[in-house]
Amino acid sequence: MDTLPLYLNRYRQALHKFVGFTDEEWQLFSQGLYIEQIKKKKFFVEAGDVCKKVSLIITGSVRFYVVKDGEEITNYFCFENEWVSAYSSFLKQRPSPVYIEALQDTVLVTFTYQFLQQCYASPQLAYKSERFGRLIAEYLIGCYEDRLASFLYQSPEERYLQLLKTNITLMQYVPQHYIANYLGITPVSLSRIRKRIMHTN
Amino acid sequence: MDTLPLYLNRYRQALHKFVGFTDEEWQLFSQGLYIEQIKKKKFFVEAGDVCKKVSLIITGSVRFYVVKDGEEITNYFCFENEWVSAYSSFLKQRPSPVYIEALQDTVLVTFTYQFLQQCYASPQLAYKSERFGRLIAEYLIGCYEDRLASFLYQSPEERYLQLLKTNITLMQYVPQHYIANYLGITPVSLSRIRKRIMHTN
Repeated sequence: MDTLPLYLNRYRQALHKFVGFTDEEWQLFSQGLYIEQIKKKKFFVEAGDVCKKVSLIITGSVRFYVVKDGEEITNYFCFENEWVSAYSSFLKQRPSPVYIEALQDTVLVTFTYQFLQQCYASPQLAYKSERFGRLIAEYLIGCYEDRLASFLYQSPEERYLQLLKTNITLMQYVPQHYIANYLGITPVSLSRIRKRIMHTN
Repeated sequence: MDTLPLYLNRYRQALHKFVGFTDEEWQLFSQGLYIEQIKKKKFFVEAGDVCKKVSLIITGSVRFYVVKDGEEITNYFCFENEWVSAYSSFLKQRPSPVYIEALQDTVLVTFTYQFLQQCYASPQLAYKSERFGRLIAEYLIGCYEDRLASFLYQSPEERYLQLLKTNITLMQYVPQHYIANYLGITPVSLSRIRKRIMHTN
């Protein structure tokens, strides 16, 4: 079965949350899209490389991490229907500080930096591409503010409770030591917090 | 002396880093700008209120903070020629979680949320306003990524050394307990780190 039309349809729906393309505009824009398959444990981007793409996850999930003093520090996760990129690296076309690795076999629909620049320069697509770019960047600002606020204003236990409440996917599929990392604590502290909560309830 | 043209000129230069307006476009856009003066210790926005504006600081500086369990937690600072807003609150028109307070008498050039929506809807300004919106949001993503990375990958001492290197204004004008807060440590820890560094050099 040709899955391309199915995947592109999913992509168009996701895009539509930010900006609606007419059939003509979509025809032009979708020419720059391609399907990418990344096997479990393989990389979407590696630290030191320039991230040249933005993708929508059709199936699967990825983990963002950096390596410091030989240790992996997990920073973020993305799941189905979420957008993936090492954004600063992509936007500035500079080497990425993060690795983005597939947590399972993952299928994505992708466009490249080069294609996006063509869209910004295209008379037919410039305005809506700018709008899409603005709205996705503003969406990300919301994500970053929340994540930063969690480090500044919440205790590790509050961060964990917040995660339980808002991101059940993360809690189900992601190994505990990655979650501890994500919360900025050791696996031992996480296990202590979990015991304390179970004891309280 | 009428300072308005002088301030608007400064504003246009700062804007030009993101997008160049023709004289005609600038004529339209600048109609939505006004000068705001905020006395030391007064607020740009208070927590619980919806932030309705984005401003450029002409002179002065502001401090971002939240109040948690009766304690102020300082989150960010902005100085001359920097853009100020409680962005998430502004973008979503929801109550702000942060206070933004003038650290000294501060002069700003401001536009409102309502005016920006008019620009997005205006045939003459829509395209460049979208572009400006995108580029300023992307610029902020860079700021947020750096700040988040500092919490995830750096020790408090590394964060302090980084600050010494990159933000000399902050170190000169801002009280030590705000800086400790900003680094996510207690004033006592900050003073310990400073002593250790002086001892090492």
